[in-house]
Amino acid sequence: MAPRYAPSLRSRLVLTHLLSLYYLLSFAEFQDVNVMVILGFGFLGTFLVRYGYSATGFNLLVAVMATQWAVILNGIESWYYRGKIRADLRSLVVAEMCAASALISIGALLGKTNPVHLVLIALLEVSGFVLNQWLLQTLLKVPAANSIMLLHIFGAFFGLALTWILFRKGSLQPFEKEKFDHRLIGSVFLWMFWPSFNSVLVDHRSPWRKLGAVCSTYLALAVSAVTAAAVSMLSSPKGKLNPVHMQSFILAGGVAVGVSMSAVHQPWEAMTIGFTAAVLSTIVSRYLKTHMLLAFECHDTSALLSTHGLPGLLGWLAHLLLQIKACDDPTVAVRFAVFHICSLLITISLSLSMGIITGLLLKWNFWRPPQDNKCFDDQAFWEVDLNTKK
Amino acid sequence: MAPRYAPSLRSRLVLTHLLSLYYLLSFAEFQDVNVMVILGFGFLGTFLVRYGYSATGFNLLVAVMATQWAVILNGIESWYYRGKIRADLRSLVVAEMCAASALISIGALLGKTNPVHLVLIALLEVSGFVLNQWLLQTLLKVPAANSIMLLHIFGAFFGLALTWILFRKGSLQPFEKEKFDHRLIGSVFLWMFWPSFNSVLVDHRSPWRKLGAVCSTYLALAVSAVTAAAVSMLSSPKGKLNPVHMQSFILAGGVAVGVSMSAVHQPWEAMTIGFTAAVLSTIVSRYLKTHMLLAFECHDTSALLSTHGLPGLLGWLAHLLLQIKACDDPTVAVRFAVFHICSLLITISLSLSMGIITGLLLKWNFWRPPQDNKCFDDQAFWEVDLNTKK
Amino acid sequence: MAPRYAPSLRSRLVLTHLLSLYYLLSFAEFQDVNVMVILGFGFLGTFLVRYGYSATGFNLLVAVMATQWAVILNGIESWYYRGKIRADLRSLVVAEMCAASALISIGALLGKTNPVHLVLIALLEVSGFVLNQWLLQTLLKVPAANSIMLLHIFGAFFGLALTWILFRKGSLQPFEKEKFDHRLIGSVFLWMFWPSFNSVLVDHRSPWRKLGAVCSTYLALAVSAVTAAAVSMLSSPKGKLNPVHMQSFILAGGVAVGVSMSAVHQPWEAMTIGFTAAVLSTIVSRYLKTHMLLAFECHDTSALLSTHGLPGLLGWLAHLLLQIKACDDPTVAVRFAVFHICSLLITISLSLSMGIITGLLLKWNFWRPPQDNKCFDDQAFWEVDLNTKK
Repeated sequence: MAPRYAPSLRSRLVLTHLLSLYYLLSFAEFQDVNVMVILGFGFLGTFLVRYGYSATGFNLLVAVMATQWAVILNGIESWYYRGKIRADLRSLVVAEMCAASALISIGALLGKTNPVHLVLIALLEVSGFVLNQWLLQTLLKVPAANSIMLLHIFGAFFGLALTWILFRKGSLQPFEKEKFDHRLIGSVFLWMFWPSFNSVLVDHRSPWRKLGAVCSTYLALAVSAVTAAAVSMLSSPKGKLNPVHMQSFILAGGVAVGVSMSAVHQPWEAMTIGFTAAVLSTIVSRYLKTHMLLAFECHDTSALLSTHGLPGLLGWLAHLLLQIKACDDPTVAVRFAVFHICSLLITISLSLSMGIITGLLLKWNFWRPPQDNKCFDDQAFWEVDLNTKK
Repeated sequence: MAPRYAPSLRSRLVLTHLLSLYYLLSFAEFQDVNVMVILGFGFLGTFLVRYGYSATGFNLLVAVMATQWAVILNGIESWYYRGKIRADLRSLVVAEMCAASALISIGALLGKTNPVHLVLIALLEVSGFVLNQWLLQTLLKVPAANSIMLLHIFGAFFGLALTWILFRKGSLQPFEKEKFDHRLIGSVFLWMFWPSFNSVLVDHRSPWRKLGAVCSTYLALAVSAVTAAAVSMLSSPKGKLNPVHMQSFILAGGVAVGVSMSAVHQPWEAMTIGFTAAVLSTIVSRYLKTHMLLAFECHDTSALLSTHGLPGLLGWLAHLLLQIKACDDPTVAVRFAVFHICSLLITISLSLSMGIITGLLLKWNFWRPPQDNKCFDDQAFWEVDLNTKK
Repeated sequence: MAPRYAPSLRSRLVLTHLLSLYYLLSFAEFQDVNVMVILGFGFLGTFLVRYGYSATGFNLLVAVMATQWAVILNGIESWYYRGKIRADLRSLVVAEMCAASALISIGALLGKTNPVHLVLIALLEVSGFVLNQWLLQTLLKVPAANSIMLLHIFGAFFGLALTWILFRKGSLQPFEKEKFDHRLIGSVFLWMFWPSFNSVLVDHRSPWRKLGAVCSTYLALAVSAVTAAAVSMLSSPKGKLNPVHMQSFILAGGVAVGVSMSAVHQPWEAMTIGFTAAVLSTIVSRYLKTHMLLAFECHDTSALLSTHGLPGLLGWLAHLLLQIKACDDPTVAVRFAVFHICSLLITISLSLSMGIITGLLLKWNFWRPPQDNKCFDDQAFWEVDLNTKK
């Protein structure tokens, strides 16, 4: 039985408690994004056998520096007008999502760079991403949630431009110490927390939309996992599963549905997007990976293009199609299409050019890149005594 | 200081925010069950050294397919009357719990089956489980939460019937590649999220009952962990702990108290149930395991009987006794006992018969079961290059 | 659109739901502390290669027994006056934090003790810690949240006194089986859940304070991670990172800011504390560790002094300085300083003397300590067949 209070007291009590709950919930969301950014990406990196410390440790460092940098950059406007930068949980969540775009790109460079490189990349990429967001929001009036969700596209193209510039002859053969042990646990973590990640930017005041986002993401991920496994098996000559496919492409549906989130309203839409994303990623990865290495001179350690790039583009396309379908008035539809295409063009050109600039900066020998035979080796950066390791 | 609003606005604001919070909390519960089903069972399987990919990857696949199938089956009634199937977080949570019963059974078959087998088992078992629930709810008016909690009993007996049918002569010796590395981390994950799992079906409108469920489960698990360690040590000739006992039987209390949840009201009741469950499981496992393999021809990879079966039965018994104790009127008590015994009989006979049917179907060579020397080996299903593994 | 109800019904509905939410949130907090205590410390221990079962398993056992013992001890007063001990989620959270002080100390003894030792230590330390809390609260009117947060200082000095008493000549060389494989995952888990840990004791009725605690802890941890990496690299002759530093000192900021929580109000204060803690811990550990082993005969397996002891003292100092800065009236400031210094003196002397008493008790050969060549070896306590391990 609920206790009884005098009405006036009761109202105030209710309001106070409500606020209390409201702000405590912010913490739950913050925690989920935190787990995803710090732990998900950290675990993902442990697939490099001789590079486990670096992958986990450097990921933490980069995440932390990129987040702090993003808090500062996002706060410039507020600092200009009010002389203060906000540092509350909301601004930390947004900053962590900006940091996520840097962590995506860094996946393609793990093992071929030193920590100073990684920190430089993170700072430049976050700056570029915040600039991109500002352009989209100012020029094209794209809502904040939508422009942040382009992080997959931005991160993927930035990372690809970067690897293309930093290509080394040594990448044509596998590196001496580039050994994999694909544990699926990192992916499973990301898989589980992806619904939070996609729903965190949906407006609090429309809980149904928020729960809808969680539900759509779950369905897209579920379809995506089954599809990736099936396509990987069917496209293999011996009918076997490929661990890399399972690791990356069970997430493709989550990426695609995240980018198109604000236009997805029906379960079947989410499931179709998840299905298409998984098919696309798995097939492209099966037939294009070696091709990319040789023809385009891109050594893509963590399958950036097919994990984040293509599903991101697919999500963008799905967003466009669903939005046009929902429009009654053709003028509005055309107008939306023009804006939507412009926002993609701006994002891609900015990410590619920032990636190329960053790459050229890093080519400078001043930063002492690791030699080919030190690539993918923890011992280059850590005081590890081999005898004490297993 | 809480902000002030005009009263009418205030009421509406309060209601809107409240709904918002209410639905956001659903997400927290969904996430906990999700972690438990996907991650807990996924980690549990990594104890098979040469079978880590398959255990984690196949568990994800089966969980995802079983959940989608359960959403459809649970929605048949609603589809019949309203032409629609609900796919919201609530229906996903219930579906994931149905999927859990399939994941439990599959534990007994890991390493001796191929993915097609596993998917077939999952689909058939979920169908059986949903049918069982429907029978209990229609014939005996068992509340939904209680009938779903019988998943441990259903899963265990289904799995045992299945291993009995699928017994191979090869199981009499350990398989060539059946190597264990019992990490306790998977169990520790399950141990931590068990209180969520047991409380998720308790009615939202009685928060005290819900917190009571969390608290009872925690106490039962705590007592269970200490007891399992003590009994394992005392029953060993050299006074050593057995990793399998620690891995499985620290959870026995959670299983037992989950099945009897709606009748447990006092801390001491939960603690007694946890203690008895751990003693029972540890002793049965110590003295019966080899016996079961030889006499009953059951090769039970993950100690199904003593982890889920016996604690489940114990929980059922505790529920009966506590309910009878709480009844003032002997007529009511007898009536309850009859219904309760019938519900167990239906569950066990349905699970055993579905298990036998599934087993007979899988014996068909069309499904190409793995040969004995390929059992417990990732290389049969994954494109793994041994040279790139540690 | 929110549904409409009659006003009177609406109020009652709001209150009931509100209570429901309120109590459900308690569960979220409980779960976070639970994850931190059980999983964080469990993972942390897996850095001992040949001692993984024992570290994870014994940690669970000790955590569970210490928590139950703390529930009983904390309930003595209530039992005396009302004849009942409360066992709800709130009392479990407080009890788990008491258990955390025991888990901290046990870190220094892992591998050199048997489970009976560990349980004895846990029971004695929890008793000491509860006594300390009672003294501080009764004599010096220290608020409960502040006195519990001294757990880092209590745990560190108790552990150091204990290792000093239990010092063995064998520790002068590394033990035969003391092999490390520092995975950073355990630390990353603790890093992520530290904001919950620090905010859980802040009063629910001031949500801003609670979110402030989360935010301060996050900032302190972020600064601490970057600083620990930088100092570790700069102080190394070859400019390499030390895994132990990364593992332990990214957490130093969280410890320090936790102890000074009730006086930290500005982001820059939290960041300064995090920075100082990381510098202090890393430098002390770099230059003092071997010294401590030889001169003070303390074999500190898990860098207790520099992970918990020094950051705890630093947090205590920061609390004092910030509180004095905030006082307008010098009399109040002096009064506070005297009380604050007394509370530290009581805590340190009680922890050292309890540690020494516990050590002397454990030296008794009746408890059969493991021989030097059995130290850090799972096989002493577990039925492990070497052939079945990797």
